Amino acid sequence: MPLTRISIPSHLPLERAHALADATHQALVATCAVPMEDRFQLITSFAPGTMLMHPTFPNVQRSADACVVEICFLAGRTGPQKRALYQHVAAGAAQAGFVPDDIMIALVENETIDWSLGRGQTYAEMHTN
Amino acid sequence: MPLTRISIPSHLPLERAHALADATHQALVATCAVPMEDRFQLITSFAPGTMLMHPTFPNVQRSADACVVEICFLAGRTGPQKRALYQHVAAGAAQAGFVPDDIMIALVENETIDWSLGRGQTYAEMHTN
Amino acid sequence: MPLTRISIPSHLPLERAHALADATHQALVATCAVPMEDRFQLITSFAPGTMLMHPTFPNVQRSADACVVEICFLAGRTGPQKRALYQHVAAGAAQAGFVPDDIMIALVENETIDWSLGRGQTYAEMHTN
Repeated sequence: MPLTRISIPSHLPLERAHALADATHQALVATCAVPMEDRFQLITSFAPGTMLMHPTFPNVQRSADACVVEICFLAGRTGPQKRALYQHVAAGAAQAGFVPDDIMIALVENETIDWSLGRGQTYAEMHTN
Repeated sequence: MPLTRISIPSHLPLERAHALADATHQALVATCAVPMEDRFQLITSFAPGTMLMHPTFPNVQRSADACVVEICFLAGRTGPQKRALYQHVAAGAAQAGFVPDDIMIALVENETIDWSLGRGQTYAEMHTN
Repeated sequence: MPLTRISIPSHLPLERAHALADATHQALVATCAVPMEDRFQLITSFAPGTMLMHPTFPNVQRSADACVVEICFLAGRTGPQKRALYQHVAAGAAQAGFVPDDIMIALVENETIDWSLGRGQTYAEMHTN
């Protein structure tokens, strides 16, 4: 039930977006106890002029390939888990050809009751059925 | 002031998206005391390969028509209200031809002060003017 | 590290979206102590029928140009800061040709640890390196 939004510039091929999506999910599995099957990701590509990313703030060198990864997931992950998550995403993205400075990540949290993964049931109900 | 994002696969016609949007709003009205007029919804359609939804996690059978409904609304709804919300959305979607397993819902909450519905005013100011 | 999503109807030219993006960022700088360089904005344009905005709720006159500004930023801004933010965004948008009633704003908050602005580092790590 993490729901991840991957925002990429439109000049990048879909394979690059998929590689970033893979890296993000593998990082969630490795660092935040997310089940491998618990994968829900939306990829949006942005035409030139619609993705405004400062080139250096606060202390990086962003290229035209800079991407944004937004993850909405359950509250409760610790600071060390989030730190490890960022490192894993960046490392996986680097293996896929990204420059680590180009990967921006933002997390938003909610609670178990805030998810229905289908069938009109809460996640808790579905998990015990 | 719920703000709802409906994400649908691009092979679905807009009428299907509208039906899901209708079902979602009617469910908010019926279960969460949202005024009928308080409707703000953004519909985005995703090309093949840009909407990655696990086919069965945790215990459902998703088809190629699987959709995501994200609702940002005021904190304060109870667990039973959210449970009823999911049931109403799924039931309304089913009437519109969706399989209930295909409707995933995620909620994010904020506070009254976090909304301006126009004119540079807070929601509270506008409501009493 | 605010991350801003600007949603506009597709009949508006990109310059209008940029003007709204400019107004939003200048408002964040003026009212919420956001550094000028700390600018990250995603602009999405919505085709007719995909942006459902009630024309008058709760007490405004929305036109076909109505837009949504969503800002995800650090918790801690006060009520007066948020009120000033809305006023500044609306005033800046008006200078760019928008009717203030057409600017809807929604805020979602998170924490410092919830951001990596690149390089797999937390914002805190990057800021002190």
